Amino acid sequence: MKRQNSNFKLVISYDGSGYHGWQRQKTDRTIQAELEKALTTMTGSNSKITGSGRTDAGVHAMGQVANFQSDAGLSPDVYCKGLNSLLPDDILVLSCERMPAAFHARYDTRSKHYQYRILNRELPAIMERHYVWHIKRRLNLAAMQTAAVFLVGRHDFKAFEGSGSPRSTTVREVFRAEVRARGKDRVSFDIEADGFLRYMVRNIVGTLVDVGTEKIAADTVGKILDSKDRGKAGATAPARGLFLMGVRY
Amino acid sequence: MKRQNSNFKLVISYDGSGYHGWQRQKTDRTIQAELEKALTTMTGSNSKITGSGRTDAGVHAMGQVANFQSDAGLSPDVYCKGLNSLLPDDILVLSCERMPAAFHARYDTRSKHYQYRILNRELPAIMERHYVWHIKRRLNLAAMQTAAVFLVGRHDFKAFEGSGSPRSTTVREVFRAEVRARGKDRVSFDIEADGFLRYMVRNIVGTLVDVGTEKIAADTVGKILDSKDRGKAGATAPARGLFLMGVRY
Repeated sequence: MKRQNSNFKLVISYDGSGYHGWQRQKTDRTIQAELEKALTTMTGSNSKITGSGRTDAGVHAMGQVANFQSDAGLSPDVYCKGLNSLLPDDILVLSCERMPAAFHARYDTRSKHYQYRILNRELPAIMERHYVWHIKRRLNLAAMQTAAVFLVGRHDFKAFEGSGSPRSTTVREVFRAEVRARGKDRVSFDIEADGFLRYMVRNIVGTLVDVGTEKIAADTVGKILDSKDRGKAGATAPARGLFLMGVRY
Repeated sequence: MKRQNSNFKLVISYDGSGYHGWQRQKTDRTIQAELEKALTTMTGSNSKITGSGRTDAGVHAMGQVANFQSDAGLSPDVYCKGLNSLLPDDILVLSCERMPAAFHARYDTRSKHYQYRILNRELPAIMERHYVWHIKRRLNLAAMQTAAVFLVGRHDFKAFEGSGSPRSTTVREVFRAEVRARGKDRVSFDIEADGFLRYMVRNIVGTLVDVGTEKIAADTVGKILDSKDRGKAGATAPARGLFLMGVRY
């Protein structure tokens, strides 16, 4: 008699510094591969995990979501503790819960929230070197805040898309795009959307920083968006400042 | 004609995770060795640096102080920028200034300030795994604060000394010993003294945590101090939570 399959949702935090991103690959170390290896050890059978989406090499997560099917008959709490005891110390399962059979971590996504972190001062911060983009030149936050407003709403984000991305459309809806000062020398950029194109957040951040350093005017961001031309947007911001904060369903 | 020797003071921040402590060693990677290597590259002659004192393997610094003599005729600003361009990204020179010839980073120390950081909650924090001691059991901060008061003043700290430490006396004067809550799940312990014995801060923290978990009473710390018996104090707290914050002259 075959045991019943259960569907589990994981919320996962990881330090992306040591990984070639989320997605399983033939040779390189990835988050998904580490999770599948740990899960396979626990269940005794070859296990697959579905993430809400990829994160690139060096990108971090405070709340990545994934799901997996298992007929091993273990409880969510056992998965949570068991996986954490098997995973390396830069990946942590924050929670595990049983879901209806139909739940799918990728297809059911309603929105994702990314945060980008900038350290804006002369000297870098040693202990945060893997977690912020250090920019020495003083950023004009008011101008960046004005520019971010152009991103909110339903737009074609082709101008902010990295090359070679598989997608059917480049239209996305941004629910929130907010530049904030944190303390005296930190800047964060929060963006929430129904989906993201490859490198979209990092290309947007690169462009916002061009506004902050007054290389371009705030309203140029609206014009770049309208142009649908990647050549017009700024450089791709480094991966290390980017955090996948959470996924809504 | 010999060029004039100048004496320079460096303030240095480092992430101790990848090092076998401050002190130069024959084979292992140390902070002092990295600094001396960079300085030797800059000056073209074999350079020695004197630190305010050692930090152990895995211990961090926000403000270690060191001095060096050089007749290379370079300015403090050139040393600061030059060293930072040569040093690995986990060591940073925060400042460099010219000092009177007599200044000695070790002998002239008036006090040192260490901070120990604890994360007190169920789940660890991935991005801070090298910078805090993660303790799941809820700590009784009021008891720890009461216990810390016993440390302030001039005492024989023999009970909190690691073995095999070279020193002429185990008496030290503690100017400040303060346990504080930071946010909802962080605890810091700040201690400033005219000097520290080997593992003294970490042995004190291990003992204060025994108070926080109510394994021992707050006033037991006074008794442990009086006993001068290392066997009575708590276990040595992990290096990763410890930061040398600054040195006064």
